Amino acid sequence: MEKSNANSAREKAIEKFLKSQQESQNSDELVKGILGGNQGALAKAITLLESTNPAHITLASEVVQKCLQHSGNSIRIGITGVPGVGKSTFIEAFGTLLTSQGIKVAVLAVDPSSSVNKGSILGDKTRMENLSTNPLAFIRPSPSSGSLGGVANATRESILLCEAAGFQVIIVETVGVGQSEYLVKEMVDFFLLLMLSGAGDEIQGIKRGIMEMADALFVNKADGENKILAQKAAQAYSNALHLFPAREDGWIPQTGVCSALKEDGIEQVWEVISTFKKDQISNKEFYKRRQYQSKSWLMNQVNGALKNQFFSHPLIQKNLDQIIAQVVSGAKTPYAGSQELMSLFLDKPTN
Amino acid sequence: MEKSNANSAREKAIEKFLKSQQESQNSDELVKGILGGNQGALAKAITLLESTNPAHITLASEVVQKCLQHSGNSIRIGITGVPGVGKSTFIEAFGTLLTSQGIKVAVLAVDPSSSVNKGSILGDKTRMENLSTNPLAFIRPSPSSGSLGGVANATRESILLCEAAGFQVIIVETVGVGQSEYLVKEMVDFFLLLMLSGAGDEIQGIKRGIMEMADALFVNKADGENKILAQKAAQAYSNALHLFPAREDGWIPQTGVCSALKEDGIEQVWEVISTFKKDQISNKEFYKRRQYQSKSWLMNQVNGALKNQFFSHPLIQKNLDQIIAQVVSGAKTPYAGSQELMSLFLDKPTN
Repeated sequence: MEKSNANSAREKAIEKFLKSQQESQNSDELVKGILGGNQGALAKAITLLESTNPAHITLASEVVQKCLQHSGNSIRIGITGVPGVGKSTFIEAFGTLLTSQGIKVAVLAVDPSSSVNKGSILGDKTRMENLSTNPLAFIRPSPSSGSLGGVANATRESILLCEAAGFQVIIVETVGVGQSEYLVKEMVDFFLLLMLSGAGDEIQGIKRGIMEMADALFVNKADGENKILAQKAAQAYSNALHLFPAREDGWIPQTGVCSALKEDGIEQVWEVISTFKKDQISNKEFYKRRQYQSKSWLMNQVNGALKNQFFSHPLIQKNLDQIIAQVVSGAKTPYAGSQELMSLFLDKPTN
Repeated sequence: MEKSNANSAREKAIEKFLKSQQESQNSDELVKGILGGNQGALAKAITLLESTNPAHITLASEVVQKCLQHSGNSIRIGITGVPGVGKSTFIEAFGTLLTSQGIKVAVLAVDPSSSVNKGSILGDKTRMENLSTNPLAFIRPSPSSGSLGGVANATRESILLCEAAGFQVIIVETVGVGQSEYLVKEMVDFFLLLMLSGAGDEIQGIKRGIMEMADALFVNKADGENKILAQKAAQAYSNALHLFPAREDGWIPQTGVCSALKEDGIEQVWEVISTFKKDQISNKEFYKRRQYQSKSWLMNQVNGALKNQFFSHPLIQKNLDQIIAQVVSGAKTPYAGSQELMSLFLDKPTN
């Protein structure tokens, strides 16, 4: 038995060594695959990014680091809108237009509901029938687990990998109902808001935050008898956007109508985005924005790492529950509890 | 000269000593004043809470700790709605109703725009003419400086001080346009959403997040020819609320109409809130919610303290700019930059 155990342990060690060799090979192999435009390698690397396994994370960060110098050559487009606005149909039409011009299109998704509700956007690739079978397109659903922050981080690095794989247009889809818009805005060059026409009362105060982020606002489903309503709505939005203060980057948000279903007005969206890119590159705002985004992404990462460090500290693990109980029972203010936790964390550091 | 300098230094030291004595007295004096219902002492303590001066913060946290056992005996009501919905007029009418019944009412505000725009809500106390001169009422505008998180923390502790001063209803006003609702929701027992009637299309997807947080939704300005529209709107909202999943605390959000201007329907709001309190105390959700809120407030404090610690670390201060530059130039991924910063922070801790 003992000998067999020793053998088994040795075998395991060898296996582990071989596996580590294999993984370091995999990193180069994955990078090679990605740079060659291999969608299988790209998908595998994104899966590693979304993993919570430390070995996968190390491997993924190697891959991203090696791809970094080949990334950046794209236009990153965020698309949002309330459920029912027709985002999938729009992306299907938009992506099909671009691929027909030989442009490689990647579609990613950030969906805060997917971890709760098992996915709602892009969960079903068949909603984009043409695009999903198009060799010039790559479609990736939202990671279905992890915090919104974690999902956003994985998506940010996925953008870099898609660019290294030669995709020229990166679409990041999200739903217009929560915090995810703010995260997506931080990772894209251009933010497109899709809207629906309603019977009057187009401008709602609550939407102001999302509307203010938009570089263009298109009213979708402008077909049939809805077309006139949609045009009126677009005009109302256009008027409203003029009420916002002028932007520092000089861009004036554009409005328009389209019908994703009838593939009508989709070229106009692409024209607006192309004009934006030209305009923002010429006034240097394009790269300034990306630099600002990289910095704020770094800060988000630091914030996450600090929290991990804190909660894995042995004295915090030992005392946290008790201090929480004291605060919850009203014996201690949250401020006093926080002071106590911080002194535990700092007086006897882990390293 | 030298002698005079030495004298001056000694004098300063004495002054400092006397001041520290005075401040420790002040803490007890302030607490005594607050517990006695002195509005001047309450206002002074809240000013200390909003200060960025470390001595003030220490003093303020002493005061809060000493008041803690006298706090909690109130109903905390958050009130939100888009600009123009009539929040000030509503609070004026609502507060006047309560004080006429001998109930002491405190009104605080969390306004994320006040640090940018020099205050918009409660900035002008004269907007609540009756309430501001009512001895049973205490009105405090939003702190005009600091981050939204800092403003929220000061407001949370201000609630405790108002309770210790004997205020039985604490109203926290905020504007319905951003993240402040989520912070206010975390510090109140009851969340009231004021709405306006529009010409149809009452339910907008974007509002869902705020609507889902509401314990009651009242359509204001239900007067004159607008009354029927307001009732229709309230009915539409009521239907919409039924689409949301049932709440764990068993409460069914209520809808109604009111006219703050005509002081009509205000009693109904108070009835809903009183029923809520009775209901939630009897099923134990009332204190469960407050305990949960204390815990999440503690965690927010820890998060802020961790960041302070990080950014004041000498190795971080020395290297942060360079690492940011490397990330921004694309030489390093944000992930790699964050790893490097974390190892600087952890290898040579400050203490």
